[in-house]
Amino acid sequence: MALRTLGPKAAAALDQELMSTGAFSLDQLMELAGLSVSQALFKLQPPQKGNCILIAVGPGNNGGDGLVAARHLWHYGYKPTVYYPKQPKNELYQRLSQQLRDLRIPFTEDFSSQLSTTDFIIDSIFGFSFSGEVREPFPSVIAALRDSKVPVLAVDAPSSWNIETGPPDEGPGKGYNPDALISLTAPKPLVKWFEGRHFVGGRFLTQAMAEKYELDIPPYEGLDQVVEVPANK
Amino acid sequence: MALRTLGPKAAAALDQELMSTGAFSLDQLMELAGLSVSQALFKLQPPQKGNCILIAVGPGNNGGDGLVAARHLWHYGYKPTVYYPKQPKNELYQRLSQQLRDLRIPFTEDFSSQLSTTDFIIDSIFGFSFSGEVREPFPSVIAALRDSKVPVLAVDAPSSWNIETGPPDEGPGKGYNPDALISLTAPKPLVKWFEGRHFVGGRFLTQAMAEKYELDIPPYEGLDQVVEVPANK
Repeated sequence: MALRTLGPKAAAALDQELMSTGAFSLDQLMELAGLSVSQALFKLQPPQKGNCILIAVGPGNNGGDGLVAARHLWHYGYKPTVYYPKQPKNELYQRLSQQLRDLRIPFTEDFSSQLSTTDFIIDSIFGFSFSGEVREPFPSVIAALRDSKVPVLAVDAPSSWNIETGPPDEGPGKGYNPDALISLTAPKPLVKWFEGRHFVGGRFLTQAMAEKYELDIPPYEGLDQVVEVPANK
Repeated sequence: MALRTLGPKAAAALDQELMSTGAFSLDQLMELAGLSVSQALFKLQPPQKGNCILIAVGPGNNGGDGLVAARHLWHYGYKPTVYYPKQPKNELYQRLSQQLRDLRIPFTEDFSSQLSTTDFIIDSIFGFSFSGEVREPFPSVIAALRDSKVPVLAVDAPSSWNIETGPPDEGPGKGYNPDALISLTAPKPLVKWFEGRHFVGGRFLTQAMAEKYELDIPPYEGLDQVVEVPANK
């Protein structure tokens, strides 16, 4: 049985509910989301198999998850490099970036030139709130993700995919199929078109919230903050 | 080689530095600390060996770590019960408590009556900022921790122990020797007198901070947020 999915409006409502009546702070949720991302990457690519990780960070919360993941990966023994071309004046993202600078994690301004020395890429550019157009400088980055032979783990959505209708018919995201996806809290409808390895993370969903939003709590094991699930086709 | 220790003044300074120039929020640090505590408990007592956990929560940040641990333990399949007799009007602690109520985790007002059905206790009453006197209602709770046959995991310090000079010569904490201790960020000087199993958690210390405070980064493995270390004698 495939896990039930969460559309973009319901995902936004669930997030809002977690942070209001659910009493979570964005700091807390982002820490747990980014931790999940780092654990999925570890399962895909243990550090001894190659530890250079390039993290493409977008301007919103999906990017924030990538920043948190970069920090945890560093502590696991990886060598993360961060590409963060649009850095909003948001206090939380600035703090997460400072935490990376304090670990001497390099920030690069040139995504493509890093690819030849990268073992795995994390695509945390756009998440469930993405719709419409891919703005500069991200079209060329998404084209590089599409064309590169370096495997990619996408966070919540392959960037540029429509959350409900999946892969785009045109633009740089046409033909972009990452090797792995981590869905946060619950899979989004786009997973119907996704064919790679699929993880779910965000081990904080209550039974009551799962019932309200008609979701399944995935079968996490032991201490894991992430679980691999069958393709949602 | 035993890990170097962190005295109470230095621990307070390090915490303050993490939350100022280090750019961490208390929410974030408490989430990671509580997660470490939950992982140490899991290593001591996997849920299939008995999953009823009683968590004694004090009025400060040590208590907050216990609240976070309770939530993670619930997600791992434990049945936590929380004893939280002094609940300050602190927004963060209130939010962490709400997160537990939303999971239907019970709060008890009677610590002793729970002991007969408890498999493991977490002592998150007092941490590195404790000094001086144990105020009501905690003397009887610490006496119960001392006398109970249920094993105890203490968070950062066995409650009522002096952070620098260890076990007290009088009062309910005299003769209180928990089975296990998790030191957060770094062991405190009291570990010299501690004879149980010893864990270290808080996998966020930078090399620069470790050098500045003359600490060791403990040998974490894999994805673990906690590591068992030899006795610090």
